[in-house]
Amino acid sequence: MAENFKVTPWEVKGKVDYDQLVKQFGTRHLTPQLLERLEKHSGKLHFMLRRKIFFSHRDLDWLLDRYEKGEKFVLYTGRGPSGDTHMGHLLPWVLTKWLQDKFDAELYFQLTDDEKFLNSGKLGMEDTHRLSYENALDVIAMGFDPKKTFIFSNQDYGKTMYNLALKTAKLTTFSTAKAVFGFDNSTNIGMVFFPAVQAAPCFLPTELKGKNTPVLIPAAIDQDPYWRITRDAAARLGYYKPAAIHTRFLPGLQGPDAKMSSSVPDSAIFTTDTPEAARKKIMKSFSGGAATLAEHKKHGGNPDTDTSCQYLYQMFEEDDGKVKEIFEQYRSGALGSGEVKNMLADKVVAFLVEHQRKREQARKNLDKFMLKD
Amino acid sequence: MAENFKVTPWEVKGKVDYDQLVKQFGTRHLTPQLLERLEKHSGKLHFMLRRKIFFSHRDLDWLLDRYEKGEKFVLYTGRGPSGDTHMGHLLPWVLTKWLQDKFDAELYFQLTDDEKFLNSGKLGMEDTHRLSYENALDVIAMGFDPKKTFIFSNQDYGKTMYNLALKTAKLTTFSTAKAVFGFDNSTNIGMVFFPAVQAAPCFLPTELKGKNTPVLIPAAIDQDPYWRITRDAAARLGYYKPAAIHTRFLPGLQGPDAKMSSSVPDSAIFTTDTPEAARKKIMKSFSGGAATLAEHKKHGGNPDTDTSCQYLYQMFEEDDGKVKEIFEQYRSGALGSGEVKNMLADKVVAFLVEHQRKREQARKNLDKFMLKD
Repeated sequence: MAENFKVTPWEVKGKVDYDQLVKQFGTRHLTPQLLERLEKHSGKLHFMLRRKIFFSHRDLDWLLDRYEKGEKFVLYTGRGPSGDTHMGHLLPWVLTKWLQDKFDAELYFQLTDDEKFLNSGKLGMEDTHRLSYENALDVIAMGFDPKKTFIFSNQDYGKTMYNLALKTAKLTTFSTAKAVFGFDNSTNIGMVFFPAVQAAPCFLPTELKGKNTPVLIPAAIDQDPYWRITRDAAARLGYYKPAAIHTRFLPGLQGPDAKMSSSVPDSAIFTTDTPEAARKKIMKSFSGGAATLAEHKKHGGNPDTDTSCQYLYQMFEEDDGKVKEIFEQYRSGALGSGEVKNMLADKVVAFLVEHQRKREQARKNLDKFMLKD
Repeated sequence: MAENFKVTPWEVKGKVDYDQLVKQFGTRHLTPQLLERLEKHSGKLHFMLRRKIFFSHRDLDWLLDRYEKGEKFVLYTGRGPSGDTHMGHLLPWVLTKWLQDKFDAELYFQLTDDEKFLNSGKLGMEDTHRLSYENALDVIAMGFDPKKTFIFSNQDYGKTMYNLALKTAKLTTFSTAKAVFGFDNSTNIGMVFFPAVQAAPCFLPTELKGKNTPVLIPAAIDQDPYWRITRDAAARLGYYKPAAIHTRFLPGLQGPDAKMSSSVPDSAIFTTDTPEAARKKIMKSFSGGAATLAEHKKHGGNPDTDTSCQYLYQMFEEDDGKVKEIFEQYRSGALGSGEVKNMLADKVVAFLVEHQRKREQARKNLDKFMLKD
């Protein structure tokens, strides 16, 4: 089967075939049965689950078995602080927040300011460290519970991370790391070690609590390779294997095949964009409509490739009925590209105003969230 | 040129040709001019320098240039805590102590309880950590100045070490690490990263003091590969390249080609051996004498291969005149193997009694020496 796309933790290229990715990575689709079980415990499924934005998992069934026997799980996710936070980063945090609320779960949040230094041509350690704290403001602004949320920069929590990483590192050969991450002779030895550091938080709750603790990782599917080596090591170290739930990628503003990139400001809406700038980006974004308004009214547009339709579907319009209506009207031509862009822009602007207010408030609350050695 | 020996940081095999090693590693011999300069500053050369036990260096001339311009250097050495300390470990510490005294130099002492965990089939992290503290007692018992000596276990000082290691790691490719250390596909990713951790203390004094600080590393020649990658990275990071002074190996008790090994108790005298046990080991050690006493008296023995003669020469008899006399008498047959063994045993027993007393005292003083995050 030809693969016209590539997904690694550092690179997403081409139009991703998610079914193919599930096969290639060896993960599982989220089944109706699993969604039913999640619904039973949460009252109502989050729209990102209903709409299969989160579409794949590892061991979620096992995690729910344990949960149903009274064993609580913790959440673990993170962010590589290479620049400002954009909507693609926030997407998994929305479901993470929902999971924290519905399952009363602690969250461990890793800021990989070691990796982003190791992997960057231009960022120094001070840069990625500063960005860790900027990105942490966005995490806090999502409304996570300060009593149950532990955010850490790998630089600031380096002793704990390094010592825990050693355990996975000892069990992971260069050969395995090469096969899983595509490392080669030119890879620097920090990056070769780093998978063990990203593994460490999976075992941290067990170490902190002194008892084996199930971990669920909500993350974009490109991060899955990390948990493969972690799961192998976990089994040999006597820890539970971490479970995972994987999201699709939010498309870049320049279309479904375009990646969001911190170095291309117009490719993404950042949490630090002014509402005006965000609106402008949306108005300029890739449209699934016809070339002219007259043609669009006649033939309609394609909501599956239209950026605004997709942003509404994946992140900004919770109401299934409304989404359905928007898609139908867009497909028929009754709703124009400019109109749907304005719909999204109104939502995004409202979100940004509120998020930026909370983000500034978060500066005083950093101490309540940050773990340090 | 045939090489019938092998020297890496983890393995010393065969009869080492030290001249060949200087060529192979690209270090320099200690010249009479350099020894003269050391003598000028120290009053009298240490016997380990006079006798070329320390025989090779990197940039010692540069270090003395800076010293003569009023720029003080610090010392850095260490120990891999895989077991109890033996005489082979102590040998470089003897000169390190002398250098501290004569040059009023701070000492940074790294205990690599991360590496020994990563590289051991049987030692857990708690084992190597415990051994770090046991080995630290031996360091302290050598009489280093508590105000100027900073000892740290990599596990306990992991945040500082990890963050500093990242800088070297980013500049060191797997390809380089493979060439320098002989890593291959089966090497675990912790060991691949570790050279950057052993590099870190070279830059620590500069970081702690906020100004570029020359570093001199007294160590056995097998550790030299670490400083090669460190020196490459230093130049690119704006740190001084560390200078080094290299010692030969103290032979194992079973002869000049036999290695001391923690897993072969009779191969070495440990600082924790009872005086009786140490004496017994010496009496059983490899002798350079003839097969029978009569033959020895007639033909004489070889002090260059006799373990006791070598231990006296390299470590336990400071008096050049006495060493000369012992060697001559041994060569002539006037001095028997049993007699020279007893001479050494007396010296070693006296040393052990005193060292063990200081070692126990050191338990209360650990806090004065240990750096932790």
